[in-house]
Amino acid sequence: MIIVLKAEATETDAKDILAKIESVKLKPLFMPGTERIVLGALGDERVLQSLNIGAHPMVENVKPILSSYKQVSREIQSHDTLVQFGKTTIGGGSFLVIAGPCAVESEEQILQSTRLVKQHGASAVKAGAFKPRTSPYSFQGLEEKGLKLLKSAAEQYQLPCVSEIIDTNHVELMSQYVDAFQIGSRNMQNFNLLKAVGQTQVPILLKRGMSATIEELLLAAEYIYSEGNTNIIICERGIRTFEKAYNNTLDLNAVAFIKNRSHLPVIVDPSHGVGIKPLITPMSKAAIACGADGLMIEAHHNPQSALTDGQRALDETEFEQFMDEIKPFIHAAGKTLSEQAST
Amino acid sequence: MIIVLKAEATETDAKDILAKIESVKLKPLFMPGTERIVLGALGDERVLQSLNIGAHPMVENVKPILSSYKQVSREIQSHDTLVQFGKTTIGGGSFLVIAGPCAVESEEQILQSTRLVKQHGASAVKAGAFKPRTSPYSFQGLEEKGLKLLKSAAEQYQLPCVSEIIDTNHVELMSQYVDAFQIGSRNMQNFNLLKAVGQTQVPILLKRGMSATIEELLLAAEYIYSEGNTNIIICERGIRTFEKAYNNTLDLNAVAFIKNRSHLPVIVDPSHGVGIKPLITPMSKAAIACGADGLMIEAHHNPQSALTDGQRALDETEFEQFMDEIKPFIHAAGKTLSEQAST
Amino acid sequence: MIIVLKAEATETDAKDILAKIESVKLKPLFMPGTERIVLGALGDERVLQSLNIGAHPMVENVKPILSSYKQVSREIQSHDTLVQFGKTTIGGGSFLVIAGPCAVESEEQILQSTRLVKQHGASAVKAGAFKPRTSPYSFQGLEEKGLKLLKSAAEQYQLPCVSEIIDTNHVELMSQYVDAFQIGSRNMQNFNLLKAVGQTQVPILLKRGMSATIEELLLAAEYIYSEGNTNIIICERGIRTFEKAYNNTLDLNAVAFIKNRSHLPVIVDPSHGVGIKPLITPMSKAAIACGADGLMIEAHHNPQSALTDGQRALDETEFEQFMDEIKPFIHAAGKTLSEQAST
Amino acid sequence: MIIVLKAEATETDAKDILAKIESVKLKPLFMPGTERIVLGALGDERVLQSLNIGAHPMVENVKPILSSYKQVSREIQSHDTLVQFGKTTIGGGSFLVIAGPCAVESEEQILQSTRLVKQHGASAVKAGAFKPRTSPYSFQGLEEKGLKLLKSAAEQYQLPCVSEIIDTNHVELMSQYVDAFQIGSRNMQNFNLLKAVGQTQVPILLKRGMSATIEELLLAAEYIYSEGNTNIIICERGIRTFEKAYNNTLDLNAVAFIKNRSHLPVIVDPSHGVGIKPLITPMSKAAIACGADGLMIEAHHNPQSALTDGQRALDETEFEQFMDEIKPFIHAAGKTLSEQAST
Repeated sequence: MIIVLKAEATETDAKDILAKIESVKLKPLFMPGTERIVLGALGDERVLQSLNIGAHPMVENVKPILSSYKQVSREIQSHDTLVQFGKTTIGGGSFLVIAGPCAVESEEQILQSTRLVKQHGASAVKAGAFKPRTSPYSFQGLEEKGLKLLKSAAEQYQLPCVSEIIDTNHVELMSQYVDAFQIGSRNMQNFNLLKAVGQTQVPILLKRGMSATIEELLLAAEYIYSEGNTNIIICERGIRTFEKAYNNTLDLNAVAFIKNRSHLPVIVDPSHGVGIKPLITPMSKAAIACGADGLMIEAHHNPQSALTDGQRALDETEFEQFMDEIKPFIHAAGKTLSEQAST
Repeated sequence: MIIVLKAEATETDAKDILAKIESVKLKPLFMPGTERIVLGALGDERVLQSLNIGAHPMVENVKPILSSYKQVSREIQSHDTLVQFGKTTIGGGSFLVIAGPCAVESEEQILQSTRLVKQHGASAVKAGAFKPRTSPYSFQGLEEKGLKLLKSAAEQYQLPCVSEIIDTNHVELMSQYVDAFQIGSRNMQNFNLLKAVGQTQVPILLKRGMSATIEELLLAAEYIYSEGNTNIIICERGIRTFEKAYNNTLDLNAVAFIKNRSHLPVIVDPSHGVGIKPLITPMSKAAIACGADGLMIEAHHNPQSALTDGQRALDETEFEQFMDEIKPFIHAAGKTLSEQAST
Repeated sequence: MIIVLKAEATETDAKDILAKIESVKLKPLFMPGTERIVLGALGDERVLQSLNIGAHPMVENVKPILSSYKQVSREIQSHDTLVQFGKTTIGGGSFLVIAGPCAVESEEQILQSTRLVKQHGASAVKAGAFKPRTSPYSFQGLEEKGLKLLKSAAEQYQLPCVSEIIDTNHVELMSQYVDAFQIGSRNMQNFNLLKAVGQTQVPILLKRGMSATIEELLLAAEYIYSEGNTNIIICERGIRTFEKAYNNTLDLNAVAFIKNRSHLPVIVDPSHGVGIKPLITPMSKAAIACGADGLMIEAHHNPQSALTDGQRALDETEFEQFMDEIKPFIHAAGKTLSEQAST
Repeated sequence: MIIVLKAEATETDAKDILAKIESVKLKPLFMPGTERIVLGALGDERVLQSLNIGAHPMVENVKPILSSYKQVSREIQSHDTLVQFGKTTIGGGSFLVIAGPCAVESEEQILQSTRLVKQHGASAVKAGAFKPRTSPYSFQGLEEKGLKLLKSAAEQYQLPCVSEIIDTNHVELMSQYVDAFQIGSRNMQNFNLLKAVGQTQVPILLKRGMSATIEELLLAAEYIYSEGNTNIIICERGIRTFEKAYNNTLDLNAVAFIKNRSHLPVIVDPSHGVGIKPLITPMSKAAIACGADGLMIEAHHNPQSALTDGQRALDETEFEQFMDEIKPFIHAAGKTLSEQAST
């Protein structure tokens, strides 16, 4: 329920009502605005009705939240959420390119790859240290050593960095090294992991599951949000369909739909989302055009030598050209490429 | 097989080789270029090998066509095909908006709807007269009467018109009224219908089937092309997936992929392809950004009264705003909105 | 609407009410039962309400038909429909195996293949003469010559035969040769073809489209039924999913669901539905177990030489073993293998 | 690689070769058979080739393992694996029914539900204590209290019990209460969880992810197996498709396919797999017919009061009838319902 207080209501009135909400074990939300105080109550709506809050003298009106996701919906917050990621911001009019290799492989590799993405305009670097691989016999990542190398490269080139978290027990470890946690597709509904990262204030890049509906994706975001971490970035990365021409079917409809229904920023990963090189640039342009707030791009200083996913990573020349080609569309969308932080 | 002749080869040499190809019952193709003559041979490649054409003194090289679709592939023709539709052109740098109601309903309705799409920048009008409806109890279209009304409205507002053909027996009838035949999703693999329209020179707007792979779509185009009608426009209109948030999942990856592999122009129908109003404009922008040559938009002068699909048709105000919003992206894509023909 | 008349109502009362239904341009249905006369009215239910039929003295009650398909639903007919196919019957307790090659290829091939399926227990033979092929360069069938060969083989071995119809113009031609028309997956929503075969009394084997929902499938059946041909057999043949281990994903849930919601008989085609040989027998057993009334099996006297689909056709030894293995499940399902007709 | 030793080879020879395999950091497998010793080497096959093991005097032949999953494949072990679950066995000719409510809700509920499933023939009980729910606002399970109640009910009715594990940190806790761990669909690719349970000897019931391919499912099993836990039961529970008539599309093709390619036992969960009550019995029969080794059925003594999934749980009368109806198919499949263990 969304409870809009009258203009003359004070914070004391609000506290009074929030206490009532809490007294019946619903979750109270306090959302002071510039003109009005708005309150929320999450949980069984029948219980709330028993409180008869609409009759309170300081309540202007009470309306239900129609979507199953509550706090991440535009019903409860109409303006866009901006997420701080290192010294850069995602959401609003600034468009963020996060780029880097699939995995940290060596000091040389992560340094070179970070340098190249920085040089050609990315504002953040990404690379995996704990790699969730389909086969137990595939390269599983450099683990903590990889995190150290990533942090070191990111610091050298003054970029914030993001890496995937795959275990509730890694929260503390990873917090020392990265500026944002990526929740991968396979863990989108690993609810204990969502709760664990929800108890931090580290920005979360939440990737859509391979066959997750948008409702499930936003409910996964709600798991994080309801634990208290509101720094959530949604990432569309392709879904499974019958089509075999591409690795995944990048679903840009999801971008337009989520921007319409949720206040969270949305970025797109075409490198995994469609997964074949000649389509990365056109699909990135399309992502920008339909409202995305950023892109996540696989780039590697030497893709031929990559231990994972080399066939879809852009090399330096390709990444430079990619950045040039997307700029007119960022402009057409009324946004600007986010500036690289400087000290 | 693609057979590239030497620079000094003459048309007589070409005819000699084509005769050999024909003698083993393969389909010969004659493709004179500005510098070289290129020949093609379609059919069982083992048969062709028995001819040992590579040894012919005037043959420079012979290479196989790797894709299953042949004549519509970029392997056999690297430059874009332009399709003439009335006095306008699809393909190349000119971007075409086709708009109109789902079905012709009345003289007043088709006149008003045609007027509004013309007035705000569409270069062609569309409306159905034979409607393939899921239920036998739904409105099935005005049939020939509908075609007459459509033609009359199109002439009054000097726009070319397109309408769906659903029966091989309608080819002659429909040729009298429309400038292009639409093959709908449900008939994408109605091969006798493809062959029938392939025997005309009427432009064909071929819609992707609801779960057709891109290979199947291009092979459907190949059916038309191989009958002799090269005026084919491919239309992406959404596929079936598990996602329930939209009617269909518009697959823009297909646009980028087909533009990469085939020389045919590609347009996008977001009105059916995603099917919910607030997503039509963002997905149209995205379609432009990833390389589409045009859009097909449902517009109706009075959507509330529409007999079919009214909930997704844009009204005049919405269509005007839609046209305004897509223009910066047409520009960013380096294209121009195709001009409306004048007499 | 379903209109149940009182026990004392006469046929004259029924005619009186049917005339009223017809007067407002709804479709009247007359369904005399052993105890009561039941009437139906199809079309816009608001129009029907204006007649106030519930107030007629001979009407016991009026209830809406909830499903979008009407005449094929169990709401309007609770008992199973039996379809006569040559001298054999589909539906009820008799289980029918239809078998044969994908296509008629030669006199020898169709004779040998028909002999083998007859010898090992099939009660009907199938083979294609007009083949809808994905590529225009693939074998398209022997056409009328193929139909002649099929009919001749079927007569020699005293089996009814079925073959696919792909064009409204072939209805008369095919009626001379076959005992049932197959509507293939690609034509499930070729509505003019459905209407054309609906105007005959030839049994129709209607295959589910590759991504047709069950509702669409039953509405396709409704197209045929509402034209007057009630001899419809539904065929589940696999749907498109993300899974690449098999050609199609045979959806046996559809069999159980349709048997629950419709009175029409349902058969299963595992040869196309899953499409890999070691799975044909287990999936056939499963089809029987979940309620199918028959199977359609690809069998060929010499699969290695087959022009189409040889890799999934059973040879004589395999077909014999197949028939042996499915029998215990037909028995467990309380059915009997339908007897082969004799003269 | 599979390395078959000569008949005269001794265990010393085997150890010699295994040491070589280990020396190049490949994973060695020792698989003594009744007639021959078979060895395996997992990892980069090019490395193995450098050893030239085929030239060893005691090696009869060396062949590659073609599938990406190795130890769970039939290539490496042709006979069926039997898994001990409490005092009962899964796999081989004994057919196991596991039944119980979705979640433990109260002492009374789990006792009554366990009693009913035992009384009518189930050989194991299931119920969730940690529930992975799509929404953070839904009932999340009784946690350890639920495990205690489940164990107590299971002991009273002498049935082994299974419950879902959702966190690597719960392995020890859950081991005290349950006889098998269920890995749910959402965690099928939670690789750290797979590794953690792989380090126990507790039987694992591994459910297929909602859009997991069979290859991914078997690779998930390989994660567990390669850690040393070979007690794995695969569970098919429905996939995501476009069809909206059922909750999920139960994919029985997967059962037949996995039985063909892997030696692990396979069970089917139709309660979630198709998810609508009238289809549970027919789809269970079909599961038996296509080769499943067991079923997992939602049953509740009072479904109307269930906190989760009540609409698809069978009540006592329905469960009794269900057990009666499936028996003829277990018999037709040449199996017997596994006996309930007694002390």
